[in-house]
Amino acid sequence: MGSLKDDELPKRDSNYTALTPLSFLERSAAVYPDKVSIIYNKQRFTWSQTLQRCRCLASALIRHSIAAGDTVAVMAPNVPAMYEVQFGVPMAEALLNCINIRLDARTVAVLFEHSQAKAILVDEEFLPLVVEALNINSQKQGSSPLNPFLVLIRDEHNTKSLQKNPMDVVYQSLVDKVMDYEEFLLQGDPRFRWKPPADEWDSISVGYTSGTTASPKGVVLSHRGAYLAALNNCVVWEMNHSTVYLWTLPLFHCNGWCLAWTLAALAGTNICLRQVIPSAIFSAIAEHGVNHLCGAPTVLNMIINAEPHEKVPFKQGVKVMTAGAAPPIAVLAKMEEQGFEVTHTYGLTETYGPSTICAWKKEWNELPLADRARLKSRQGVPYISLEGLDVVDPETMIPVPADGTTLGEIVMRGNMVMKGYLRNPEACRESFQGGWFHSGDLGVKHSDGYIEVKDRAKDIIISGGENISSLEVESALYRHPHVLEASVVARPDEQWGESPCAFITLKQVRDAAAVTPEDIIKFCRSALPHFMVPRSVVFGPLPKTATGKIQKHILRSKAKALGAVSKSSQSRL
Amino acid sequence: MGSLKDDELPKRDSNYTALTPLSFLERSAAVYPDKVSIIYNKQRFTWSQTLQRCRCLASALIRHSIAAGDTVAVMAPNVPAMYEVQFGVPMAEALLNCINIRLDARTVAVLFEHSQAKAILVDEEFLPLVVEALNINSQKQGSSPLNPFLVLIRDEHNTKSLQKNPMDVVYQSLVDKVMDYEEFLLQGDPRFRWKPPADEWDSISVGYTSGTTASPKGVVLSHRGAYLAALNNCVVWEMNHSTVYLWTLPLFHCNGWCLAWTLAALAGTNICLRQVIPSAIFSAIAEHGVNHLCGAPTVLNMIINAEPHEKVPFKQGVKVMTAGAAPPIAVLAKMEEQGFEVTHTYGLTETYGPSTICAWKKEWNELPLADRARLKSRQGVPYISLEGLDVVDPETMIPVPADGTTLGEIVMRGNMVMKGYLRNPEACRESFQGGWFHSGDLGVKHSDGYIEVKDRAKDIIISGGENISSLEVESALYRHPHVLEASVVARPDEQWGESPCAFITLKQVRDAAAVTPEDIIKFCRSALPHFMVPRSVVFGPLPKTATGKIQKHILRSKAKALGAVSKSSQSRL
Repeated sequence: MGSLKDDELPKRDSNYTALTPLSFLERSAAVYPDKVSIIYNKQRFTWSQTLQRCRCLASALIRHSIAAGDTVAVMAPNVPAMYEVQFGVPMAEALLNCINIRLDARTVAVLFEHSQAKAILVDEEFLPLVVEALNINSQKQGSSPLNPFLVLIRDEHNTKSLQKNPMDVVYQSLVDKVMDYEEFLLQGDPRFRWKPPADEWDSISVGYTSGTTASPKGVVLSHRGAYLAALNNCVVWEMNHSTVYLWTLPLFHCNGWCLAWTLAALAGTNICLRQVIPSAIFSAIAEHGVNHLCGAPTVLNMIINAEPHEKVPFKQGVKVMTAGAAPPIAVLAKMEEQGFEVTHTYGLTETYGPSTICAWKKEWNELPLADRARLKSRQGVPYISLEGLDVVDPETMIPVPADGTTLGEIVMRGNMVMKGYLRNPEACRESFQGGWFHSGDLGVKHSDGYIEVKDRAKDIIISGGENISSLEVESALYRHPHVLEASVVARPDEQWGESPCAFITLKQVRDAAAVTPEDIIKFCRSALPHFMVPRSVVFGPLPKTATGKIQKHILRSKAKALGAVSKSSQSRL
Repeated sequence: MGSLKDDELPKRDSNYTALTPLSFLERSAAVYPDKVSIIYNKQRFTWSQTLQRCRCLASALIRHSIAAGDTVAVMAPNVPAMYEVQFGVPMAEALLNCINIRLDARTVAVLFEHSQAKAILVDEEFLPLVVEALNINSQKQGSSPLNPFLVLIRDEHNTKSLQKNPMDVVYQSLVDKVMDYEEFLLQGDPRFRWKPPADEWDSISVGYTSGTTASPKGVVLSHRGAYLAALNNCVVWEMNHSTVYLWTLPLFHCNGWCLAWTLAALAGTNICLRQVIPSAIFSAIAEHGVNHLCGAPTVLNMIINAEPHEKVPFKQGVKVMTAGAAPPIAVLAKMEEQGFEVTHTYGLTETYGPSTICAWKKEWNELPLADRARLKSRQGVPYISLEGLDVVDPETMIPVPADGTTLGEIVMRGNMVMKGYLRNPEACRESFQGGWFHSGDLGVKHSDGYIEVKDRAKDIIISGGENISSLEVESALYRHPHVLEASVVARPDEQWGESPCAFITLKQVRDAAAVTPEDIIKFCRSALPHFMVPRSVVFGPLPKTATGKIQKHILRSKAKALGAVSKSSQSRL
């Protein structure tokens, strides 16, 4: 006898299995074979069909020499094939690399080379881009030819006209071969038995974060993390078997915040969407009973500013998860009026998508809208499987006081933190310093433990020795009745070193045309400490990433190009 | 470059944490410090208090020399302390052993010795039993004295009168010392930082399965399995943050089917219950807004057969998870009428409690009650983290055809299967044969993949060469209007070897007293193949385990004691 020794009860085949979200699909197909998995326009798939198609994809990839650990790149909007690759590629033990479709050929070329893509699955709309990227790589000196094969995803709903039938074009100099996606699946085996990962720490996907050219940061996720993140989504967002999920969030963005796998765990229904436009959103909600969707603030804006003829009435409550920036009070109020319940989350590709949530408390429902908006603007508390979340001094790693004002860096640790960056030890070293993952975001911790993002480290404007949070200035701008979107960056300033420069899109309403930069500045003076008031205002559309994030680096260049604000400009006091 | 090597991206403190359900409690206390965690009569605890009390318990145990791997035994009904030990004991890295309070002193003595309990936490009602058990062990020849210390859980709601103040009794000859639970907690540190398990495979608890004397089977569960099982409960039973859970299911039964940990993951509310009686169930539902509870069929019977004065009206829907035996049609109908939605699950202590669920399909709602009852009587499909479930020939391990009739053994594999039996390599070897866990239950697989338990292997009655499922006979008996409970076992039979013997409790209604064994037999003849009709019928109360399972082994002895049915008995044809 004596005390228990662990080695007396070892792991066995019968009581230990590597965690992988691929098992969700097997289960859903077995339990709910005839339930609708995917709807795309007139197309319908069932869970049993989706499983078979994913197995076919995996076995066809293997048949075409894709080996364990090889990268398979995918460029497609949210069409059914884009959902299938989330399972089919890792079932072949390959590394799934979904590429942002808004990138330019030059960047895509860099990513293909960095990930060493052996196969590229591409929606017909993006074929010219992929060919251009491959062309760039083939002309580079000293680089070994990749010679991947291409699989072309056709879509009759692609409205961008193609100059010629892409299958006719001879790409042989660039690629090994070109195949049609549906024909490719036919080469596979619907009964293929995929091999579960030998270790749940094995990689399932790599996703490049935006703004990558010189030193690409490919975020590598594990089967284990993907499994846990997917289940966390169910629990924290209260999704269940009746979930009908509308794909307004790009699947190439961190595997759709791991929701591709969540939907399989629940055997819910995916509504695919090629183009995220208001009329398509509303008709999907009304027609298919959508009850969950995600989106950056741009999607929320799209919903509340839809034209009357684009709106279709619906009866069910719709839960909307947003991340990227806190929903402004006006947006929140309008969403609620229209039957949407907004949940505010925060995360990075490095944390499997959202990994903190502004967990809502029942008693807050009694508060006036302004208070609710203030509480909801916070990024909140960790997901269940993110075991550590804090705001610290990044040098000393000492947590800031929970006073709601002391700025520090937001750091995370636990099972929802990525494995690391692909072939980038330098970036790994930097981001994992001190035993935590460094988000690069600055924030505060409130007395109730909820964190609030104040700014990206590089989005802080340092003006006359004062740190100005661009988010705070933007918040004020959003309260102006004619401002649709606003983004604030640093502009060189003769007197103050830097000063805030506001880029603004005005609403398409009467009176808005008459708004002047001076009006905006005057409005800000009534709403902000004077040192935070923008000294320059530029009207026009804002550059955005595929996920609707405003591309501040472009605005920053624009602001720089404007030259320094002269001393003679209107004083800030 | 070259293909990705896994060792380039190793596990780090920042991206890998051992899974443990203890982390749920830390999170809920941080996020919802003031939300009510436990209600027990007039007592209320918040999640922050529950965390502090659990930390106190852990550090007090350590202070009293409990070391990693030591067993801490607990005997208590569902009082708040019984919830706290689910966290406090493993926080001390000790092995939690909750003992069935319906066992006798002799059995408890065997378990204390087998688990080598170093500390015993006991509710005052069970102190005499524990003392008796320790006494038995101290008088055994050749056994080394255990000398554990006792912690006494006082409860003013204990209605069983104690002959004297238990703290006054001198137990020094049997135990090291006796302390009061609340005083014991005061010796601990509410800020104690518990050590997460070094490995998530480390053991969290051991639970002895019923009927153990000669070769105790102590089911050992891991932190990893407990974590996954707890999250699975949320997902498959659609529990969420608003869950108010009534503890009708004993917490000593597989840690309350892992729901103790589920409630902490959700920061729901636990309603403790010392005695499971109809009036207490109904008033808890009405007063506290209970929306989830579990129970064996006996709890369902208690609910539908409650006296009018015991019932209190309530508005919310209440979900009831049942396991142990399929809910008969009449029970189901009455439960539905009264606002209860029954979910049928199945599992064993060896599979972290329920690990299969009769997953309900929306389209089934349209069917008549009889069809719904038939579908719901099936044990169904695996939980998400039970990666394998099948019905096989136990010799060849070949799956039976999915024809709904071929009997086989139900086997499981995956992350919801126990580590093994404590210090019982023989039992481990037997139950893990062929790479699967053998449930010992016989069942069939239907064409839709749902499994259905037909019988415990040993509950099959072999009569004249025919296998008779006692469950099937019981099903028929439950359809008799005057039968409250029925259990069927084998009785020796001169002519047929064995024949079914029915033990029946009649309802307390007019006319029931007049029911004779012949009436029952006649009724069965109209409902069953003749060879399955009981040849003997005995009226009276049925012996039950703590979880309401009828103790067939006792009935089997009784049936044996009746002697063989003589040939001259009424023929079965």
